[in-house]
Amino acid sequence: MERAVRELWAESRDLLGLHSSAAPAAAVPRAETPPTPLAFLRDHVSPGRPLLLSSAATRHWPATTLWPTESYLSDSLRSTAVSLHLTPTGRGADALAPNPSLPSTNCFASALIRRVEFPTAIRLIQSSTSDSGVVAYAQQQDDCLRGEYAAVAGDVDAHVDWASEAFGCLPEAINLWIGSASSRTSFHKDHYDNIYAVVSGEKHFILLPPTEHHRLYIRDYPAASYIAEEEEEEGDELELNRLRLRLELEDPERIVPWSSVDPYPPSPEEAVAQASSFPLYFDGPAPIRCTVRAGEMLYLPSMWFHHVSQSPGPNGLTIAVNYWYDMQFDIKYAYFNFLRSVEIDGSRRIGDSEGDVEEKDD
Amino acid sequence: MERAVRELWAESRDLLGLHSSAAPAAAVPRAETPPTPLAFLRDHVSPGRPLLLSSAATRHWPATTLWPTESYLSDSLRSTAVSLHLTPTGRGADALAPNPSLPSTNCFASALIRRVEFPTAIRLIQSSTSDSGVVAYAQQQDDCLRGEYAAVAGDVDAHVDWASEAFGCLPEAINLWIGSASSRTSFHKDHYDNIYAVVSGEKHFILLPPTEHHRLYIRDYPAASYIAEEEEEEGDELELNRLRLRLELEDPERIVPWSSVDPYPPSPEEAVAQASSFPLYFDGPAPIRCTVRAGEMLYLPSMWFHHVSQSPGPNGLTIAVNYWYDMQFDIKYAYFNFLRSVEIDGSRRIGDSEGDVEEKDD
Repeated sequence: MERAVRELWAESRDLLGLHSSAAPAAAVPRAETPPTPLAFLRDHVSPGRPLLLSSAATRHWPATTLWPTESYLSDSLRSTAVSLHLTPTGRGADALAPNPSLPSTNCFASALIRRVEFPTAIRLIQSSTSDSGVVAYAQQQDDCLRGEYAAVAGDVDAHVDWASEAFGCLPEAINLWIGSASSRTSFHKDHYDNIYAVVSGEKHFILLPPTEHHRLYIRDYPAASYIAEEEEEEGDELELNRLRLRLELEDPERIVPWSSVDPYPPSPEEAVAQASSFPLYFDGPAPIRCTVRAGEMLYLPSMWFHHVSQSPGPNGLTIAVNYWYDMQFDIKYAYFNFLRSVEIDGSRRIGDSEGDVEEKDD
Repeated sequence: MERAVRELWAESRDLLGLHSSAAPAAAVPRAETPPTPLAFLRDHVSPGRPLLLSSAATRHWPATTLWPTESYLSDSLRSTAVSLHLTPTGRGADALAPNPSLPSTNCFASALIRRVEFPTAIRLIQSSTSDSGVVAYAQQQDDCLRGEYAAVAGDVDAHVDWASEAFGCLPEAINLWIGSASSRTSFHKDHYDNIYAVVSGEKHFILLPPTEHHRLYIRDYPAASYIAEEEEEEGDELELNRLRLRLELEDPERIVPWSSVDPYPPSPEEAVAQASSFPLYFDGPAPIRCTVRAGEMLYLPSMWFHHVSQSPGPNGLTIAVNYWYDMQFDIKYAYFNFLRSVEIDGSRRIGDSEGDVEEKDD
């Protein structure tokens, strides 16, 4: 069975035009201007092929000039409370972390979320480093651009017109992401077609097509959340270095199927352990890497696995907006579920759930 | 593995909207007017969902009024030589027949093809019955409408505009089919997106989505061709009752992978044998049946298995035109090949080739 699955990987990359023997690294197709709705549907959505668009796609957005400046967003959102996600390392939100009850195993860790005024959020994000003890990331995958951030939503297009026409609907959610170099999002997939626009800094995507499901080693992990060890006194300004986070398992237990693979292991020892535990990922075909620069837009087809890291712009921030469109559940989705039901050596452990990876995005 | 494959069948029908527990028989979606290119691409081509269009789609074709008349085609093509396919029963062209060297096994039989003047072809087709000893079918899957039948090609649209715009190309081939109630086409699939328009009579399709590959029992058969037992003397008019056809294996041997299933077994004994040999077909979910009436158009997505039988119009003929558009080889195709590599009980025999079903159409 493993041979057939490996042939599927090779053929799907080949047919998607994402790999050629001439180019050792597969690349996302790139276009200078947005496609027509028909060409987008035919050449990208229907076959499930990503597309990277040059900054021409967002040149008309006020956000591209206003948001990277020092003060515009803080002025516009001066007294707006926003959701700030706090984790000890920045790798830890919606990602695996040692299980507090059994540290030789992992759990699925969610961030501590605090509502703070936007200027405070920005200060904390900008001071987030690997040494700061806590890393802050402003994000909330609940259509937050049109919610918490409504005051600046008019600085970007209300929808991506050529995409809306192709999909035949308006976006289900538009999310804003403001982070630093310390924040990452672990491998996952979404049940949405995604148009991802970077406004400041760069986002570095590692992509795998849905056909390469087994390479992610989706396994079951108990859910846990970060909580503040010692509550600050009321009225105190939130300070990262005064905050101590502790991971606590959810009670009653909740199981989350999640990818076991960390493409950037934090230590040489961990790198050796990852490579030996997850050979389908580390010994398989090179993942597809794609950097989205300020102004550029990535179309990420539904069900593609993605890992995201980032580099800040001149303001010390990575700012991005993504538009989620409802995906079409069609024959590709049925085939994906069939593929997922096939077991190949070690990719799933006995007793693992067949549940889906939770819908999370970056 | 069989359980997972059966779940794939159920889920893909469910997602394609081709089956519901309320309606015992799955039906092809129907529309009164042609879709926009975008809606066609989004709702039919991309998900791989057939579409049946009412006769509004061809009302403007001169062919719809001219071709069903007694004399128009014979007058227009009076001295045109056309390719006539001749078989003993009408079930026998590009279908299985007893292997002449080993009658307890089957071979893949191709018709005897004779070039005759069009009025002769029509006379022979109209006199083709199950008792006539030989059945004639005018067809040639080589863009024949724009070749042999160029004199009447202007009576239909040169391409299907909404489909061409959706696919982003013009048809690769346009074929004309003129037959009688005796002609059938056995189960097969095409590597084309197909727009099938009936001009006279009715075509009865039995359809299975590509996900149901295993139900067709694709096995390897040696290729054979019908030849005329005693050559008529030169200059004689071809007469069906003077023609004796004999099946001869190709030399050197050529192997054709073909479906073993006959949905209309010719005898009760054969019906019992088929049902016991091919339970995945006969005991599985009901195939999707679709009758295309004069004036109507069927969009048949690439890679769908189809079996075709027909009823004649008032002129004793079934006349149809089909437009073949190059298909997109994408992730769905890779998934199909993966599915095909999975063996489930008895659906393939050891030693069967992994080759594709040859590209044939009706």
